[in-house]
Amino acid sequence: MSGQRVWTAALIVIGDEILSGRTEDKNIAQVARWLNGQGIRLQEVRVVPDVEDAIVEAVQALTSAHDYVITTGGIGPTHDDITIDSVAKAFGVPVIIDERARAILQSYYDARGIEMTEARLRMARVPKGAELIDNPTSGAPGVKIGNVHILAGVPNIAAAMLEALDGKLEGGSPVASVTIRAHAAESEVAALLKQVQDQFPGVSIGSYPFYREAEGGFGADFVVRSDDEQLANRCANALRARLLEAGIELIDGA
Amino acid sequence: MSGQRVWTAALIVIGDEILSGRTEDKNIAQVARWLNGQGIRLQEVRVVPDVEDAIVEAVQALTSAHDYVITTGGIGPTHDDITIDSVAKAFGVPVIIDERARAILQSYYDARGIEMTEARLRMARVPKGAELIDNPTSGAPGVKIGNVHILAGVPNIAAAMLEALDGKLEGGSPVASVTIRAHAAESEVAALLKQVQDQFPGVSIGSYPFYREAEGGFGADFVVRSDDEQLANRCANALRARLLEAGIELIDGA
Repeated sequence: MSGQRVWTAALIVIGDEILSGRTEDKNIAQVARWLNGQGIRLQEVRVVPDVEDAIVEAVQALTSAHDYVITTGGIGPTHDDITIDSVAKAFGVPVIIDERARAILQSYYDARGIEMTEARLRMARVPKGAELIDNPTSGAPGVKIGNVHILAGVPNIAAAMLEALDGKLEGGSPVASVTIRAHAAESEVAALLKQVQDQFPGVSIGSYPFYREAEGGFGADFVVRSDDEQLANRCANALRARLLEAGIELIDGA
Repeated sequence: MSGQRVWTAALIVIGDEILSGRTEDKNIAQVARWLNGQGIRLQEVRVVPDVEDAIVEAVQALTSAHDYVITTGGIGPTHDDITIDSVAKAFGVPVIIDERARAILQSYYDARGIEMTEARLRMARVPKGAELIDNPTSGAPGVKIGNVHILAGVPNIAAAMLEALDGKLEGGSPVASVTIRAHAAESEVAALLKQVQDQFPGVSIGSYPFYREAEGGFGADFVVRSDDEQLANRCANALRARLLEAGIELIDGA
């Protein structure tokens, strides 16, 4: 590793619908890619149910272990949306109505001729001491308290909130990543991969097999990752050379 | 709740490729649905990197908290496949070559005219005391030790291993689930939902908003879940009646 400060994050996906298999999660991948773009490493994800104790426990465990925690889900107007209350409990603060959030919601509903109700006002509730995260898509804002960033669960709304946070979290450099795709069974090249990995302790080489008719059947992607872009490139070149020497066919454009 | 024994499980998804956002996870949803079919509730998921300490910690934390733990990922032939070693460490047992696994691999490779190598033999390594899980798809078996079930990360191989486990884990009844789809903004019906939820403490009502052009724009799915199928149906009928009374249009075929 290049000795620079590494910024880490954890993601808490909140929702019974993910744990029941009803809904396929789309937030893990998009949060992971967004964090990488900010120079922050996603080191752990937990998916927890809509149960206060489970959310409190996850927030408390992860908030002290990482620079940032992101949560998705459970911030709508219905009774099963308990993320705000649970995060407030994790921080030991009360939940209050945020006047700026109320004003945002009021003008969102006014513009659409919709009445503000008690249920809609729920979306202006925040843990005391929190800040808001813009939601350009659907009015109801996200919430930041301490190092916890509370986002919507609906993937396109979560994406809009991430965009609003772009460049606002301190991070390092994005991890550099080079992918080499080859016509090779993983087990054919395992020894070779290990040798190159041992030669380059500052990188990690991942091996991901696939089977795709269109690409001639079995193959694997070898992904070289490092904080140090030059080192990643040197390692990738060494690996390409070794694969070619071993008679492995590389596939362009991976 | 109906007072019957509830069987719970946790899933550990192992892999840097999920945490980097390179690969979108497909195992959480399929494991969740499979467990539900076995009458076992998935209560927590953790995604951890290819780092021994992280895997050991997750296995130790979850194996005592749940009836079953399932892991996906990290059981191939390459240097980044460290699940077997990590689970063995979590159980405090050595890793050995399993002779039945070796025989399975040998006959798989013999049938294809492929030579057994040290890398391929890695896939016969198991924590001492483990049993095997059939892999009808690609030879290399899954592994069971204690209540931990170690599956492949490639989704179709994981699916084949789950199929091999069908009916082999003791469980209760599958959770009964009824979905009501409606042309309604969540915030319009939040109060009504909460009233029905309070009337039926043995069920959980989840509310999942969507926006789909093809279905006339904004809507929501209300999902009624319970261990008790009759109770779920009674609650769903009560909810349908209340929604219709409130002038909400229901969408068939949800």
